[in-house]
Amino acid sequence: MSQCNMGVNSLRVFTVKMRSLAREMWSISWKVGRDDPRRVIHSVKVGLALCLVSLLFLLEPLFAGIGKNAIWAVMTVVVVLEFTAGATLCKGLNRALGTLCAGSLAFLVEFVANESGQVFQAVFIGTMVFLIGSFATYLRFFPYVKKNYDYGVLIFILTFNLITVSSYRVENVLNIARERSYMIAIGCGICLLMALLVFPNWSGQDLHNSAVFKLESLATSIEACVKQYFQDMEINGDQSSEDYICKGYKSVLDSKSADETLALYASWEPRYSRHFRRKFPWKQYVRLGDALRHFGYTTVALHGCLQSEIQAPRFIRAMFKSPCTRVAEEVKKVLIELAGSIRHRRRFSPSFMSDNLNEALQDLNKTFKSQPRLLIGSYHAHEPSNAAEPNEAQLKRSERRALRPTLSKIAITGLEFSEALPFAAFASSLVEMVARLEIVIEEVEELGR
Amino acid sequence: MSQCNMGVNSLRVFTVKMRSLAREMWSISWKVGRDDPRRVIHSVKVGLALCLVSLLFLLEPLFAGIGKNAIWAVMTVVVVLEFTAGATLCKGLNRALGTLCAGSLAFLVEFVANESGQVFQAVFIGTMVFLIGSFATYLRFFPYVKKNYDYGVLIFILTFNLITVSSYRVENVLNIARERSYMIAIGCGICLLMALLVFPNWSGQDLHNSAVFKLESLATSIEACVKQYFQDMEINGDQSSEDYICKGYKSVLDSKSADETLALYASWEPRYSRHFRRKFPWKQYVRLGDALRHFGYTTVALHGCLQSEIQAPRFIRAMFKSPCTRVAEEVKKVLIELAGSIRHRRRFSPSFMSDNLNEALQDLNKTFKSQPRLLIGSYHAHEPSNAAEPNEAQLKRSERRALRPTLSKIAITGLEFSEALPFAAFASSLVEMVARLEIVIEEVEELGR
Repeated sequence: MSQCNMGVNSLRVFTVKMRSLAREMWSISWKVGRDDPRRVIHSVKVGLALCLVSLLFLLEPLFAGIGKNAIWAVMTVVVVLEFTAGATLCKGLNRALGTLCAGSLAFLVEFVANESGQVFQAVFIGTMVFLIGSFATYLRFFPYVKKNYDYGVLIFILTFNLITVSSYRVENVLNIARERSYMIAIGCGICLLMALLVFPNWSGQDLHNSAVFKLESLATSIEACVKQYFQDMEINGDQSSEDYICKGYKSVLDSKSADETLALYASWEPRYSRHFRRKFPWKQYVRLGDALRHFGYTTVALHGCLQSEIQAPRFIRAMFKSPCTRVAEEVKKVLIELAGSIRHRRRFSPSFMSDNLNEALQDLNKTFKSQPRLLIGSYHAHEPSNAAEPNEAQLKRSERRALRPTLSKIAITGLEFSEALPFAAFASSLVEMVARLEIVIEEVEELGR
Repeated sequence: MSQCNMGVNSLRVFTVKMRSLAREMWSISWKVGRDDPRRVIHSVKVGLALCLVSLLFLLEPLFAGIGKNAIWAVMTVVVVLEFTAGATLCKGLNRALGTLCAGSLAFLVEFVANESGQVFQAVFIGTMVFLIGSFATYLRFFPYVKKNYDYGVLIFILTFNLITVSSYRVENVLNIARERSYMIAIGCGICLLMALLVFPNWSGQDLHNSAVFKLESLATSIEACVKQYFQDMEINGDQSSEDYICKGYKSVLDSKSADETLALYASWEPRYSRHFRRKFPWKQYVRLGDALRHFGYTTVALHGCLQSEIQAPRFIRAMFKSPCTRVAEEVKKVLIELAGSIRHRRRFSPSFMSDNLNEALQDLNKTFKSQPRLLIGSYHAHEPSNAAEPNEAQLKRSERRALRPTLSKIAITGLEFSEALPFAAFASSLVEMVARLEIVIEEVEELGR
């Protein structure tokens, strides 16, 4: 009886667990689809392409004609059909090129091998396999080859080995190779059809969107950062807002490899000249990405001022709240404007924006000049230094390492640099940000040309 | 006669061109090999593995026994054998897992399909191909799957389709599938042998070396940066030194994706417990990488002070040269010490280092306090402001855009912030750097535990 109960219980536990697992799977699936609905479309496209290529087997007349080697078409579809048109083209053309080169070379090798006896032939083939395999593998380490033709060289090695080695045992290798090439061509054809004509996803478009997204997230990040800096100390350590700021610039700073991959694929895409009269300026997008990262580092510096162990006293911040916020506001406006101009592919006219920015900077300058005594550090008497008063985030961090005397505790908070020093860093980062904004503007203008 | 001459000439030009191309190819090859000699070894290994797998064809007894499907072994070797042991294991196990799952599912589908008529069977197979293909492709978008099992799912789709579709036409699919699995197993075996036993390259080791390299390049970058900041203005725009600084921290900041790939492969590697009692702490290396990037941002800020449009006057720099250089020197020493402790896998004792660092900071503090009037900006009269005096790099940049009134010209150099503001940013970056150094130290200590 109790055993039976235990059984029922464990079954119940199992059911509950399975249910929660299913629910979790469902929520992840939902999220993946909602984040980018093109993923669902792509999945259906792959299913469809596989179905199409299966018809080579399933339909009697097709199979009787050419279907014997149809697995090569299936293989090609599975391997070549990628998410974006550019990636598919890159892989498809690489595959075609690799197969072609390997085929030619393999027949050359076979021709030489056939002229001689069985044993010599085996040794010769073995040697060639070793030499060509090593050489081609070494070629894959060349930066240019690695970037553009890595997959092609892989297919070259594969095809060369298959043909050369098979030729030793099979008589009509030429026939087999020809049939297989047809199949690979059919597979590539289906892939290109699916990638280019049925709801195509363009890497160029992705690159374009990512540039807009990066500009916007930098804008929100800067706004949040400056807002939090001038907030009351008590709310300072707010974790969610910190995460928000971080997320904004992190997505920009870590975008290098993603950008370069997208640009590589975009370079393979047919230039869709709807928006661009000349070829798609993917190189310019990479340069814009570099400029944005360069700009993003100042955001990190700004955020660093927020997290720093030494904090400027509250009254100094209050004094500069209005001009600093205004500069940040203007920077944000320019970024949003730039994002908009890229999104709608219209020319950006910097003059109107820069006037406002200029005014905001002058304003900050005036405030600085009106406070000549600010940066002396003689305010010590006015208010107890806030520097040593750790905020929530600091407290949390120091709890973690409470057991040993920390370097920062001894060294940094003990220092009595001019109290305005941290604020000077903040203001200077802000000004530097404006300077680097110009490089970003230049790159965006170049893009619009 | 003249035509003949032209022909000879063009032949000569062609020869010269070919020669220079060959020379260039040779120099690239040499460089690729010299940068990492393991690449040569890897290439030879691949050639050897291909040779070994070709023996299945070339040796009579082997071919008679099992060689008919040997192309699957060749395919496996070409695709699975990667540069590092971890990558090979990851791909090999993914391939095995994918094949196994796909095989089981395919036989289930075949079992159901066989129970019915020819037409229903075709429709059923087509539907299953579509559904499984779509579903598995969608699965590849799940972040966890994408990171760990992307290749496995690809192989799953491939194998499932091959078996299911073939089963419609071929009778003894079970036999064929079994023979192919043997071949794939042989291929995987050869790959693992080559990857794990013959001059193995470990991703874990690469990850380890990259951590050391990053620490060292940050150290040289910081040293060069501070040295250049306190150099005479005339030599300031030195391009080669700028590149040197950039290269140092760029390699750290852009290392995220490379780090994560290495860590992923390292997580597949057998724990080589020569140095680590517990399993290889690849997660900790990723965390250290994050800390180093966080630290690296202050180097960028420091470098930003060098490139900034507004420069602190020379006399202010001269005043702080000695204490600032000392702090940078100490930071560099700690970084080198950390790199050494990781390289030789010995414990790092921070106390001795932090004493020196502390002293250096106190020194800087004292200098600040001894100059109470420094940050007022009343030095204006002493010396004409250097802010508007563009250095070489600035001149070069402004030449490029000489034709239009630039934002920076109008807005930034026109500002008359307290002259010490840019210097405050420099000093503050230096102090912030020390604060972040502690996080790096913590992570390295954690690594050594």
